[in-house]
Amino acid sequence: MSKVYLIRKAHFSAAHRLYNPEMTESDNWGIYGPCTNANGHGHNYTLEVVIAGEPDPKTGILMNLAHLKEIVHDVVIKEMDHKNLNLDVPALRGIIPTAENLSIVIWKMLKEKVPRGLLHEIRLRETENNLSIYRGE
Amino acid sequence: MSKVYLIRKAHFSAAHRLYNPEMTESDNWGIYGPCTNANGHGHNYTLEVVIAGEPDPKTGILMNLAHLKEIVHDVVIKEMDHKNLNLDVPALRGIIPTAENLSIVIWKMLKEKVPRGLLHEIRLRETENNLSIYRGE
Amino acid sequence: MSKVYLIRKAHFSAAHRLYNPEMTESDNWGIYGPCTNANGHGHNYTLEVVIAGEPDPKTGILMNLAHLKEIVHDVVIKEMDHKNLNLDVPALRGIIPTAENLSIVIWKMLKEKVPRGLLHEIRLRETENNLSIYRGE
Amino acid sequence: MSKVYLIRKAHFSAAHRLYNPEMTESDNWGIYGPCTNANGHGHNYTLEVVIAGEPDPKTGILMNLAHLKEIVHDVVIKEMDHKNLNLDVPALRGIIPTAENLSIVIWKMLKEKVPRGLLHEIRLRETENNLSIYRGE
Amino acid sequence: MSKVYLIRKAHFSAAHRLYNPEMTESDNWGIYGPCTNANGHGHNYTLEVVIAGEPDPKTGILMNLAHLKEIVHDVVIKEMDHKNLNLDVPALRGIIPTAENLSIVIWKMLKEKVPRGLLHEIRLRETENNLSIYRGE
Amino acid sequence: MSKVYLIRKAHFSAAHRLYNPEMTESDNWGIYGPCTNANGHGHNYTLEVVIAGEPDPKTGILMNLAHLKEIVHDVVIKEMDHKNLNLDVPALRGIIPTAENLSIVIWKMLKEKVPRGLLHEIRLRETENNLSIYRGE
Repeated sequence: MSKVYLIRKAHFSAAHRLYNPEMTESDNWGIYGPCTNANGHGHNYTLEVVIAGEPDPKTGILMNLAHLKEIVHDVVIKEMDHKNLNLDVPALRGIIPTAENLSIVIWKMLKEKVPRGLLHEIRLRETENNLSIYRGE
Repeated sequence: MSKVYLIRKAHFSAAHRLYNPEMTESDNWGIYGPCTNANGHGHNYTLEVVIAGEPDPKTGILMNLAHLKEIVHDVVIKEMDHKNLNLDVPALRGIIPTAENLSIVIWKMLKEKVPRGLLHEIRLRETENNLSIYRGE
Repeated sequence: MSKVYLIRKAHFSAAHRLYNPEMTESDNWGIYGPCTNANGHGHNYTLEVVIAGEPDPKTGILMNLAHLKEIVHDVVIKEMDHKNLNLDVPALRGIIPTAENLSIVIWKMLKEKVPRGLLHEIRLRETENNLSIYRGE
Repeated sequence: MSKVYLIRKAHFSAAHRLYNPEMTESDNWGIYGPCTNANGHGHNYTLEVVIAGEPDPKTGILMNLAHLKEIVHDVVIKEMDHKNLNLDVPALRGIIPTAENLSIVIWKMLKEKVPRGLLHEIRLRETENNLSIYRGE
Repeated sequence: MSKVYLIRKAHFSAAHRLYNPEMTESDNWGIYGPCTNANGHGHNYTLEVVIAGEPDPKTGILMNLAHLKEIVHDVVIKEMDHKNLNLDVPALRGIIPTAENLSIVIWKMLKEKVPRGLLHEIRLRETENNLSIYRGE
Repeated sequence: MSKVYLIRKAHFSAAHRLYNPEMTESDNWGIYGPCTNANGHGHNYTLEVVIAGEPDPKTGILMNLAHLKEIVHDVVIKEMDHKNLNLDVPALRGIIPTAENLSIVIWKMLKEKVPRGLLHEIRLRETENNLSIYRGE
């Protein structure tokens, strides 16, 4: 028996704004800095979906990669690519789109769609210098 | 005499929308595809400023890099980083913020500020797969 | 008037073998080294297609990127991705698939398909350390 | 006492084909897609060997890196670089060379050769978007 | 409750020499190879600081990133950037500046300064092929 | 007839200090900033050697890559890797090791050794954000 981890990368480009309407303007600037700019800004996000489990001994694969790619595309990329994360994405309604929250929400979006409980980790890169990881813990 | 090219990289993250109000909705979608999404999307832009000329024989440098960095920051990055390119940037008023137009506008913004006619080329990366170059020609 | 260069990246993975049947085994090894291994080896190729010209003043774009992507996919990627470059690609029949030759052949494949003479340069990366460039000169 | 993890990267380029002769042609295409192309395709593989343990207090190193590099080269790179993974590599005889299986086989190849049980993890990148990890579990 | 990991990257360029005065010249060369060159050499180091914990439900962030960036800059980058690690850094006095030791020392430097016990892991890249990780274990 | 450009990458890690003894301490700091730190600092340099010409119609290659690699290693890498550029490199005696000067010196070192006048350009990356190019003009 051999446990293998497989990482699949995907990309989306989106606008967002970090702003909590229940806090004062000045508190928003103190916490989010220029990320709270009223008209928004944006990023090229890189999403890494990590699945973990035993490869099928007959095929040597953990999961059909074309199938995984399709799931990631239909569940996440189609929803978030070339979108405004504050306004266009139902799954993010009422959620401040920080990298932390995005990695948690994407985990929830994928959890049931990835078969056999294979989903292990979500890695979301917001900029070259910034990455959030969530494992459903 | 030795002509050297020196490239300095900088980064900014911004939202934008590609949309020409003089065209129909359907023409905008035909030309810009999902980039015309009404609430915008965004990118991590990478800007490469190329300067060219003779290094000073006494110092061995083409230009004080701290000075170049300061110019690029004050003239471009401060204006565009964490901004909405359609709404927040005076130099882009009335200009559709395609990668092509951005590289031309950034050239114009830097042309007079970079000393001794050293500015040679602007390279603007919009995504991992997409790059626009302008040389003032 | 403004001349802009636009680079679009694409990827393909292929097997190849460098071998000239008109040379001796020992000459093939002397010239190609382990690249002449009889059962072949392979690479993740990165193709950069550079187009150059004036952006349309109405739209701010040099060319519809979705259209360029489609041309590159139909003309090059579909032909070479997940293929054996010595056996599976009609355009390479009788041609030793070195990085140099590949960049020339890809130029010829794209030259007529990219509209308005926009094609400017082919950049083909074979490995992290190896890149061939062709400009139709 | 301090446990440190050290990662050493190496590269090889190889051809492979994913195909199980005990399955129908159509099942092979359903599972492996274009990776089952009869004449093969190939990749630039990136191998990361992770070792873990206590650095020697006298030298401040976990292991002589020149020695680790030599082991990785002799045991893995020399066997797989510029080779056809289906035909040229004894350790892969009878094994379908998926990224999953390769990471398991490379673990086994290195396990005994890396001294003092230091081997902790094998990370094998097949493409920019695809990575398999194995820890001997 | 949701445990998130957040990675923040920073860079510094420094000279160093690997040499233990208590060992013979020949032993130093045997263990450190050309890294023991008497006049030193240097690297562009990439530091990844990993913090882990529960995001604040009100703000959706694990920690104010501007604050984290400031801590990393004041505690590590200002001390090590454009410095000689053998001669200029008080925290490294008497310590051979291997990647392993650097990751341990940087952990200790940051441990108390990063608030609420959030520090989880130090990842220090010395070259493209070489990375050391320390988790305070 | 077809003119092709071929780029070969190599790496070296070195220490250096930017300092002109004919200028005051304060002028050195004004021009070189922290790069003038007395005990030096260092970088992972990436060298790209660009050669240009007609591929041999019989072999499809511009130049034997193993031969080019050997020349670059013997002439540049062996001289500069794991060295102090101010103290250890004869070709740099009396030259301030800025990126600009390094690209010019490396051009001169390689010019006669690369056969048939193929040498076209030297690209020297000092940091992720900094690159100097020289073409012998």
